[in-house]
Amino acid sequence: MKVEVAQPPLLEQVELYTDYYEFTMAQGYLLSGRANERATFDYFFRDIPFDGGFVVFAGLKDVLDHLEQLQFSNDSIEFLKSQGFQKPFLDYLRDFQFNGNIYSVPEGEIVFPNEPIVRVEGPIIHTQIIETFLLNLLNFESLIATKAARMRLMAGERKLIDFGLRRSQGFGGILASRAAMIGGFDATSNVYAARKFDIPASGTMAHSWIQSFDSELEAFRKFADLYPENTILLVDTYDTLNQGIPNAIKVAKELEEQGHQLKGIRLDSGDLAYFAHQARKQLDEAGLAYVKIAASNQLDEYVIKSLLDQKAPIDVFGVGTRLVTGDQSPALDGVYKLSQLNDEPRFKISENIEKQTLPAMKQIYRFYDEEDQFYGDAITLDHESAPHRMYHPHITNKNADTSRFTSGPLLKEVMRDGKISGTQPAIAQSAAYMRERLEQLPSEYKRFDNPHIYKVGISQSLMDIRDQLLAEYKMITTP
Amino acid sequence: MKVEVAQPPLLEQVELYTDYYEFTMAQGYLLSGRANERATFDYFFRDIPFDGGFVVFAGLKDVLDHLEQLQFSNDSIEFLKSQGFQKPFLDYLRDFQFNGNIYSVPEGEIVFPNEPIVRVEGPIIHTQIIETFLLNLLNFESLIATKAARMRLMAGERKLIDFGLRRSQGFGGILASRAAMIGGFDATSNVYAARKFDIPASGTMAHSWIQSFDSELEAFRKFADLYPENTILLVDTYDTLNQGIPNAIKVAKELEEQGHQLKGIRLDSGDLAYFAHQARKQLDEAGLAYVKIAASNQLDEYVIKSLLDQKAPIDVFGVGTRLVTGDQSPALDGVYKLSQLNDEPRFKISENIEKQTLPAMKQIYRFYDEEDQFYGDAITLDHESAPHRMYHPHITNKNADTSRFTSGPLLKEVMRDGKISGTQPAIAQSAAYMRERLEQLPSEYKRFDNPHIYKVGISQSLMDIRDQLLAEYKMITTP
Repeated sequence: MKVEVAQPPLLEQVELYTDYYEFTMAQGYLLSGRANERATFDYFFRDIPFDGGFVVFAGLKDVLDHLEQLQFSNDSIEFLKSQGFQKPFLDYLRDFQFNGNIYSVPEGEIVFPNEPIVRVEGPIIHTQIIETFLLNLLNFESLIATKAARMRLMAGERKLIDFGLRRSQGFGGILASRAAMIGGFDATSNVYAARKFDIPASGTMAHSWIQSFDSELEAFRKFADLYPENTILLVDTYDTLNQGIPNAIKVAKELEEQGHQLKGIRLDSGDLAYFAHQARKQLDEAGLAYVKIAASNQLDEYVIKSLLDQKAPIDVFGVGTRLVTGDQSPALDGVYKLSQLNDEPRFKISENIEKQTLPAMKQIYRFYDEEDQFYGDAITLDHESAPHRMYHPHITNKNADTSRFTSGPLLKEVMRDGKISGTQPAIAQSAAYMRERLEQLPSEYKRFDNPHIYKVGISQSLMDIRDQLLAEYKMITTP
Repeated sequence: MKVEVAQPPLLEQVELYTDYYEFTMAQGYLLSGRANERATFDYFFRDIPFDGGFVVFAGLKDVLDHLEQLQFSNDSIEFLKSQGFQKPFLDYLRDFQFNGNIYSVPEGEIVFPNEPIVRVEGPIIHTQIIETFLLNLLNFESLIATKAARMRLMAGERKLIDFGLRRSQGFGGILASRAAMIGGFDATSNVYAARKFDIPASGTMAHSWIQSFDSELEAFRKFADLYPENTILLVDTYDTLNQGIPNAIKVAKELEEQGHQLKGIRLDSGDLAYFAHQARKQLDEAGLAYVKIAASNQLDEYVIKSLLDQKAPIDVFGVGTRLVTGDQSPALDGVYKLSQLNDEPRFKISENIEKQTLPAMKQIYRFYDEEDQFYGDAITLDHESAPHRMYHPHITNKNADTSRFTSGPLLKEVMRDGKISGTQPAIAQSAAYMRERLEQLPSEYKRFDNPHIYKVGISQSLMDIRDQLLAEYKMITTP
């Protein structure tokens, strides 16, 4: 029997990293004798961030690792006691071990609004308690993986390095760096994430290094002495074109004499396109075609696109704030909704039609055209086979014949009775999968301006169940 | 002698939560024999987030606690070894204990662009190593405290509760909840932060609780049975006006018969102003004027303002995503720049004029008018007394006579030789200070639309030093 050692939890008492009402409700389920009713919850989001056409799913492995180890320490239980929670509930928590089943799309999968991309089944008290943590991680990692993938789409095969730690949202930087890798980044400056997730660590130098010497040239020389094989010189501390690059060239020549090569220079201010062209010219004229040009300073997918449209000869993009925070869309609006209880489908109507949920235990089928490109997805009942027709969730005369497509289910078992099923892919595997899947996504969904809206329909059987519930509900409430 | 027990670190191996280049530079300082040169770094930001007129400073206590305990574990040192760091540096880290001095404005202070709000002095290797962590925490907590304060300005004395954990950026939620309190929030749903920082925890119920019962009324009754003194009923699962509120009223009446009072109802969708008016009317007509109305769903300072402009009778605002992420301004752009080395002032010119830094060891004086309102701030040399005239940093014929104002220095010693000086204020004290200081900030800086730009000038002596450096620099570089 294979014994796997679980990673230690990310922080002490992580079991408390949840909303207070999860505990009041959990205690409620317990004290009203309903703790073990079987519940199914769906994780899904409603809107694509960045006005984009797709989302890259990430965070699953961190959620599963957490659930496998989730325990309530004495200290946590004491704290809950001090908050007025009652003895039977505290005793229950003392022996708590999550024992639900989880079906999910894999990390790196391309997903769309309203799809139940993670399905959690188990005793309602278990499935309730884990809500906040699951939402927090999946929302955030998917957000950043998506942002990263948008930059990867623009950067082609050029290097993308995460420089965001100083602007990340507190300890949000831990998972931001991981998610960026799933979305296609090459390395991170974040040493903690490098250690924790086995990500390549990377870094250059700060202005302070240069300022701390009496001259820029001396600062460059000293750094190159120390790291002859791994020096990227920051050239904008005083005057990029007249001093920074000429000094870098001097040092590169000195390195050559010692049998080494300067790795690169970094531009961090000014007009990056202009400076990159000028830098390339100066370097090439000095016979230093091998010296790479790195650029940083408020980069994002739009700036990268603009720089490359201007044919800026930049080899490495260092991206910070706008990667690790998600910039103008700093949250994915994922939610976690009850869809079944004790074999009975459940739903929520709400005052906003877009907040109405889909009942029952479900599956997602993806349809592929003759070139293996994504055509659209259908949400079906679980155990249903791929439907031959799918329907717009609200406008039923909008529907599509899907019989001509090949298809496959997206949700697979990833946890059974609280134990991870098989081995979750490594980050590099998820990143490779992401690239593969992004290739299969037609370009009209990948463009930044008004991307085409991907088709997500529902099957006839799912629609029937929902409409029946709605009818029953109306019968009860209409006078 | 008073012995204080430091809080345990927020996460294991937090010493690695930094940029890789801090270590390459630190090793560089050590190996080039410059580790103990005395450096001064300034923390300051350039732009106010949210297009606002002020920033609330926060995060200092977390930084100081971190610095007091900062150590490199064997595991961390092994990791750095695996990255190629050399034995003398690894040995140095093994005995590392931060021993710098820090001067800072207090948490809750109102601050403005380009002011050196934290000044760190010490051996350059120490002051360099701590850069990323300091930036990360101060940038994020100040961002969220500022966002919270903007909501507090709008909400008056109504309750503000942080509901953001599920949408916070991974473990960013830990410090977001703390910062929200400094910015004027009353409680949080985040149990971890409640435990860690002794913040009041708060929560209501989710839709899943209601969906899990056969009827909404039964779900309400059961919750009220369990928490007769602390029930806030979520009324929008099916039909707010025709079912949710009438059911809540029924349960409130039943509670009254048992000698209890329903605490409140919560609206989470639809037109909150309309529903709040209707709910208040229904409740009042039922003799339930004491039942509070809580509202949530994508709230921020603008929505709160709009709701109150419409006289929506809302008593409690539950704010999530747009609080804990900073919404459209998800980062404060704080930086950490070398300003002095071994008694010599240092600066950085850069290609962008706004990225030019102010040299030397500095102080900030705030000027107060006859009504004790803020007039403006002057950045001076350290040990300079309050100047009688201050100058625009770049347009020197813009200057102001400050002799008629009272004034006081903003930077105070908070750490001496790596030990916290005195006791840092508790969160509630910082929050109270914030409110006091916000009262002293004239309203034109507090409005949301085109707030007036607060005057931050420099003293003649500081200007002289900067201009002298600039002249020396130009003499060197101009052919």
